[in-house]
Amino acid sequence: MSSFKDLLKTIELELGQQQFLGSPSNLYDPLNYIIGLGGKRIRPVLTLMGCELFDGQLEKAMPAALAIEIFHNFSLIHDDIMDNAPVRRGKATVHEKWDSSTAILSGDLMLVKAYEKLLKSEQKYWPELLSVFNKTAAEVCEGQQFDMNFEKQAHVSEAEYLEMIRLKTSVLLGSSLQLGAIVAGADQVNSKKLYELGVKMGLGFQLMDDYLDAFGTPELVGKKPGGDILAGKKTIMAIKAMEKGGTKFTEILKNITSSDEKKIEQTKEIFSSIGADVYLKGLSERYFNSAGIILRELEVPTSKKENLAKLLVYLQNRSF
Amino acid sequence: MSSFKDLLKTIELELGQQQFLGSPSNLYDPLNYIIGLGGKRIRPVLTLMGCELFDGQLEKAMPAALAIEIFHNFSLIHDDIMDNAPVRRGKATVHEKWDSSTAILSGDLMLVKAYEKLLKSEQKYWPELLSVFNKTAAEVCEGQQFDMNFEKQAHVSEAEYLEMIRLKTSVLLGSSLQLGAIVAGADQVNSKKLYELGVKMGLGFQLMDDYLDAFGTPELVGKKPGGDILAGKKTIMAIKAMEKGGTKFTEILKNITSSDEKKIEQTKEIFSSIGADVYLKGLSERYFNSAGIILRELEVPTSKKENLAKLLVYLQNRSF
Repeated sequence: MSSFKDLLKTIELELGQQQFLGSPSNLYDPLNYIIGLGGKRIRPVLTLMGCELFDGQLEKAMPAALAIEIFHNFSLIHDDIMDNAPVRRGKATVHEKWDSSTAILSGDLMLVKAYEKLLKSEQKYWPELLSVFNKTAAEVCEGQQFDMNFEKQAHVSEAEYLEMIRLKTSVLLGSSLQLGAIVAGADQVNSKKLYELGVKMGLGFQLMDDYLDAFGTPELVGKKPGGDILAGKKTIMAIKAMEKGGTKFTEILKNITSSDEKKIEQTKEIFSSIGADVYLKGLSERYFNSAGIILRELEVPTSKKENLAKLLVYLQNRSF
Repeated sequence: MSSFKDLLKTIELELGQQQFLGSPSNLYDPLNYIIGLGGKRIRPVLTLMGCELFDGQLEKAMPAALAIEIFHNFSLIHDDIMDNAPVRRGKATVHEKWDSSTAILSGDLMLVKAYEKLLKSEQKYWPELLSVFNKTAAEVCEGQQFDMNFEKQAHVSEAEYLEMIRLKTSVLLGSSLQLGAIVAGADQVNSKKLYELGVKMGLGFQLMDDYLDAFGTPELVGKKPGGDILAGKKTIMAIKAMEKGGTKFTEILKNITSSDEKKIEQTKEIFSSIGADVYLKGLSERYFNSAGIILRELEVPTSKKENLAKLLVYLQNRSF
């Protein structure tokens, strides 16, 4: 069993050797650029972990692991256009560095390349792999559309928000694990359990992200806090604040004489005063716990589960 | 053997029964909307023709035929954003009717749905089908990027322009035919020949499109002529005019006191005076002829070739 760190190294090595080559260069350069920006690489590592859990050889999982990372980066390129985001991992986003049209098109190409990479997996697993991949890819689109719709929607319920982040973020983590299990020859019951584990982990992960966006230490998180607050995102904390804080909360952001810093500070005070931060952390914890329970139930030797168990604890307690 | 008309009817019937269902509705509606706008449906009909050429049953080719049409419509949604086009087939484009973000995302979803549909084909043909499909999908992106690059490029050669339209338009026509041949069990030599036939046909087709854009009868073409001229597209005729007409040609479009109608008229006069229109039609004809030669060489009974031969003549002589 390899540790997260070992697997990460393997992934980075593979990604370093991957070059998207083709013409015109301004179509292919963005693919290499965004992959080169780095990232946590959680998804491909999960695929390798899913494979190791069921005694698979890592090489067999590599195409699926890379396909997942390529897919994830395709979605980042397109999301950044839609969110009008100028910066990604401290560098210019693709549509900023090139232009929107190039970003749309190189994103499209990257989606095709994700399929191409996935199909380097053993052929006998194609039906299962492609079925999971197609379903997940569609769901990620659905999640992003819900996210955009919610921005314009006056009211969003907690259940709706959770379903949105399940689609937008969590299913891809679930699939990452599941694809690894599939190429290791795991049976459907176990591979689906692993998927569920990943989805719960993803929900816990995203909720933690939401918490850190407001209450994280900027130096650790690596970006200015309060982005979600200023964007008026209807996160779980905002939903709670709307329920309990009502008008007062929604009016903070509308105050044009108030600075961004002040808006963030005032909003965080409301979040804390009604216990929305504690509620959110508790919710995240519950999802991580659910993931832990599924892991314990999984029919593989306990020794095999250690690394994934460690990862769950690590992600749950992260402050970055 | 079924006529183009018969095959078209079959395709329309199938498309009419297809509904992209899912949530949120504003993500899925654009897929049904753009398919509902109609079109010539040449690509899916070509897939069915490719299948019939090699004695395949039409039902076997239907998934690939629909996948090609879905892919084509995905590319239209995204191209229309990039080209800032307000109208498609007389109706609002997707990004106009919804918004750019929704158009990006529903295009992405549509690309995933194209793969999903293609995978409804018989599993034993997946490797060949996916290999052709992936390669073509990447090339279509490349072609569109070249097209956009050329707009900003001072000089484009005839060879560069032909390579651009080969990628952007022709390879998809080639693949349409080839996918049909594959699911009919054609051998690689013949299925590749059919691909080449489709590429030549596609080149002839696109060059004819360029001709009609300037010299077609508006009532027949169904859109205002001169779009390419006003957009400053470096078509074969424009390239010829730059070579022979030089400065005079490029300055017509810069004249801000001149009306659009006048610019188009003056440009067409130059095209005619240097024989660029005749040259373009000749070039188109040569590609159609090459396609015809490949068709004759194809190792299938002559009676089977009739419909495709008719289609070549029909496309070559079209005035719409």
